Amino acid sequence: MAPVSETRCIIGHESVHAGRVLTQSGRVASYNGAMSILFTGNDEDIDVWMREIRAAAPGIDLRRPAQIDDPGSVRFAIVGRTRPGELRDYPNLEAILSMWAGVEHLLADETVPDHLPIVRMAEPSLTRGMVEYVCCHVLNTLLRTDRYDTDRWDHPQRLAPRFAPDWPVGIMGMGVLGSACARALAGLGFPVNGYSRTPSDVAGVRGFSGPEQLGAFLGASQVLVLLLPNTSGTRDILNRDTLSRLPPGAAIINAGRGELIDDEALLGALDSGHVERAVLDVFRDEPLADDHPYWSHPSVTVTPHLASITNPRTAAPVLARNLARLESGEPAEPLVDRGRGY
Amino acid sequence: MAPVSETRCIIGHESVHAGRVLTQSGRVASYNGAMSILFTGNDEDIDVWMREIRAAAPGIDLRRPAQIDDPGSVRFAIVGRTRPGELRDYPNLEAILSMWAGVEHLLADETVPDHLPIVRMAEPSLTRGMVEYVCCHVLNTLLRTDRYDTDRWDHPQRLAPRFAPDWPVGIMGMGVLGSACARALAGLGFPVNGYSRTPSDVAGVRGFSGPEQLGAFLGASQVLVLLLPNTSGTRDILNRDTLSRLPPGAAIINAGRGELIDDEALLGALDSGHVERAVLDVFRDEPLADDHPYWSHPSVTVTPHLASITNPRTAAPVLARNLARLESGEPAEPLVDRGRGY
Repeated sequence: MAPVSETRCIIGHESVHAGRVLTQSGRVASYNGAMSILFTGNDEDIDVWMREIRAAAPGIDLRRPAQIDDPGSVRFAIVGRTRPGELRDYPNLEAILSMWAGVEHLLADETVPDHLPIVRMAEPSLTRGMVEYVCCHVLNTLLRTDRYDTDRWDHPQRLAPRFAPDWPVGIMGMGVLGSACARALAGLGFPVNGYSRTPSDVAGVRGFSGPEQLGAFLGASQVLVLLLPNTSGTRDILNRDTLSRLPPGAAIINAGRGELIDDEALLGALDSGHVERAVLDVFRDEPLADDHPYWSHPSVTVTPHLASITNPRTAAPVLARNLARLESGEPAEPLVDRGRGY
Repeated sequence: MAPVSETRCIIGHESVHAGRVLTQSGRVASYNGAMSILFTGNDEDIDVWMREIRAAAPGIDLRRPAQIDDPGSVRFAIVGRTRPGELRDYPNLEAILSMWAGVEHLLADETVPDHLPIVRMAEPSLTRGMVEYVCCHVLNTLLRTDRYDTDRWDHPQRLAPRFAPDWPVGIMGMGVLGSACARALAGLGFPVNGYSRTPSDVAGVRGFSGPEQLGAFLGASQVLVLLLPNTSGTRDILNRDTLSRLPPGAAIINAGRGELIDDEALLGALDSGHVERAVLDVFRDEPLADDHPYWSHPSVTVTPHLASITNPRTAAPVLARNLARLESGEPAEPLVDRGRGY
């Protein structure tokens, strides 16, 4: 096994002869032959990933792509951020397993064949991290914690306190992450509205769906939490028109994708005071440029795309499980629906 | 009815002839005669209080003490912050109802007779506000939100994320407020330890009690939430010795009383890095002096005694209920135990 570079590297492994992975039930399944798996990524802690995947699938021989002697032997790829065209080098690829929840860079890469199954990352820490981030910042916007230093003893929460039952939260995107956030916020006493493409049914959450219910959803939500994927149907969904439907003094939390927001429109709504606060974790270009107006705007909290972090320790068993399923001819989960865009 | 001054005034009402209050079951009980009730307070929004108490006990004639003709007719007093000796003017007082949860100023006032029952404030918003404040700041310390501006894209939560299950919270003081915070934090996925004078039993919370279990409790708590009252037994309970029992990198949240903390010892622990962060809502002298080192310390968040605000709208019915109970000879709740000090 070659040592792993500390730099942003692309790593991979060429073949597994003696590898084993844990199945969903926790039992150990063996790889049945000379399966080749590519692992590409430019994650900062690629050494942690390699260690955890080895622990979850003992015997796996991980190497960088440069160390793969026969690209034709690669049947599966575990990928983070890929360069366009990068996967073209592997003609016999049968499936792509993403280390991330967002896969739009793979869908936008025209060299990735349409028939190739793409598996999104869904793992417990991804959901947990999102729930913790969203609850934290919904509470921060409710309690106006950004004003402690400026207002000191005249803080509005002393003079006219706000409480969760009077502060309805609207979640846009009621998938695994959105539903988990909705449940946690309802548990904290917030009224919760959920908006999704198709009707969703989460206990204690008022459901809205489809374009005809968007206005009512926005009007009923004092904090708007964006958790939608980036698709042709969601780009710029928060624009001058939809912002105007929010109640005065609303707050925005974007932990979905930067493309969901028309940035000029949001800055205008913040300047006018119609939007009281925005907490933004995702941006059209990342890292956010040092001179971007979001950094210095007094009503904006910029967070560096950390709301929901794939945790190698909990994600590696998920990858191992999906590899075992693919190897035994079962579908891996959750599969990306290309028509839907996520 | 005289108009209410906008300034910090002391108000009161002299007698109720036609007053009615809601009983705990929601039924209306009548005052049975010429009961006199004093209302003193220096709250910023005394007009809101007067409006809400009138709504909860229709017919009550509220006036400031200066408007009371016969101090001997006063049987009950609703009080906020009182001046020492202020209540001595009312020789026939039968009970004191506090607008606040903290009553140490009344216990320290030697002119308040020992036999006089004191009723603390326990109302839904007080608990709700505390739960929201504590959950907000436990999440802020977990996610290191104070470092967004300084660390930007190198934020530690991106490089080595922390999650609630690895971040045990210790609650010191498991009364109504502490137990509610413990339940909410457990619901968010935090392991929760509870420390109290006498053993407590809250589902999902690991209980500790008594001096002999204090060290184990502190050692098991990555965030320490102080919710103890200020008594001779709790003063300086967080000192150089107890701070040293906390795990390295612990966080402190004080929403109890400023007297619980030896400030010099805490500043030392913050300077050394043994304590990663302190969020402080209460202080020995309030408002906290502008030149106090807490304001400028990079590891301290100062909040202006707002963690738990009595909400006139939800507190007024509690006062009305307790007045009805007292008037009908039943005990009001919760009664202060002078021996215990709260």
